[in-house]
Amino acid sequence: MRVVVPFDAREPKTRLGPVLDGGERAAFARAMLRDVLETVHTTGRDPEVLANAPVDVDATVTVDERPLTDAVNAVLGTGDGDREAVAVVMADLALATPAALDRLFAADGEVVLAPGLGGGTNALVARHPEFRVDYHGASVRDHREAARDLDASLSTVDSFRLAVDVDEPPDLAELLLHGSGRSRAWLRDREFEVALDEGRVGVRRNAEP
Amino acid sequence: MRVVVPFDAREPKTRLGPVLDGGERAAFARAMLRDVLETVHTTGRDPEVLANAPVDVDATVTVDERPLTDAVNAVLGTGDGDREAVAVVMADLALATPAALDRLFAADGEVVLAPGLGGGTNALVARHPEFRVDYHGASVRDHREAARDLDASLSTVDSFRLAVDVDEPPDLAELLLHGSGRSRAWLRDREFEVALDEGRVGVRRNAEP
Repeated sequence: MRVVVPFDAREPKTRLGPVLDGGERAAFARAMLRDVLETVHTTGRDPEVLANAPVDVDATVTVDERPLTDAVNAVLGTGDGDREAVAVVMADLALATPAALDRLFAADGEVVLAPGLGGGTNALVARHPEFRVDYHGASVRDHREAARDLDASLSTVDSFRLAVDVDEPPDLAELLLHGSGRSRAWLRDREFEVALDEGRVGVRRNAEP
Repeated sequence: MRVVVPFDAREPKTRLGPVLDGGERAAFARAMLRDVLETVHTTGRDPEVLANAPVDVDATVTVDERPLTDAVNAVLGTGDGDREAVAVVMADLALATPAALDRLFAADGEVVLAPGLGGGTNALVARHPEFRVDYHGASVRDHREAARDLDASLSTVDSFRLAVDVDEPPDLAELLLHGSGRSRAWLRDREFEVALDEGRVGVRRNAEP
């Protein structure tokens, strides 16, 4: 199985703008990418990075400047000959563990989806040669429909660790509470900590950005 | 194993105030409770409702007017004699499936936690006679510490379906996208649907509240 990790090397994590400046967002995004790559490695697989600009990491990097959907579909389209399975795992799944990814990789189904919060598709496995992605909108719903249209068998991985992609400030609280890798350490080094308000837990930064 | 489902029968789901009026919140909360009770039933267990006022449902109901933490601890405190395991499953886990609950009930550990988004503890199993809950703040962190302080073996269930408690308007989108029970049908009958903005998916209501 190929494991492809798409990565925005140009303007990553813009929605973290309220709490991290541009250089910090780039550094934090790379820390998360490295965590994800290491987690994939721990499952015994060699991840491949699919980036829109060069990035220096311990993995094969393919640069494709097209938007995410087109770049991923170009990868899926190359598998037709040998029907090799392709997994696509987002680079901001900083809570992912080897156990969670093993459940994804081991799940039966020509299409396996790991839903993200807010309707996204945070990780998937495609074993059907005609399956293509569309990451716009509520993609998990669209991907379910795409599998149905192909008569492909579909399964879903029920994982909190794969459902949380770190996009917005409240997601940082999840990483602080449940993460363990270098991206969590990066946040703690910059004095982020869990903050308690009414309602859900958030983050507070005890230093100037 | 006892399965206790705490339920706020007085002022449920206040944080859904922006999209549902008081009577609707009460009806929706009961629809979710019934979904959760049915899901527990499907796992082969008889749920017990622990409510702060009488509620008419197909389960044994114990009324305890104290705050959630105290009421749950009163239940945990009664198990000392026979060391019976007690599961506590929140009544707003409308995405929960029998498979997700089976993973919770079957997990090893004197304390088993299913983290909720934002640091909550959406479901747990207590097999240690001295374990007590505290649902304030980032309770999942506090419960981990409480287990450690007792030298109790701890495990965590990695489930998206148990991590989403339906508290706030964005959670309704998760229910519309992934739910299947009467609470989802209730929302759809009131013309709620998934709405696509930039960023995460939300909900829109095509009728006056």
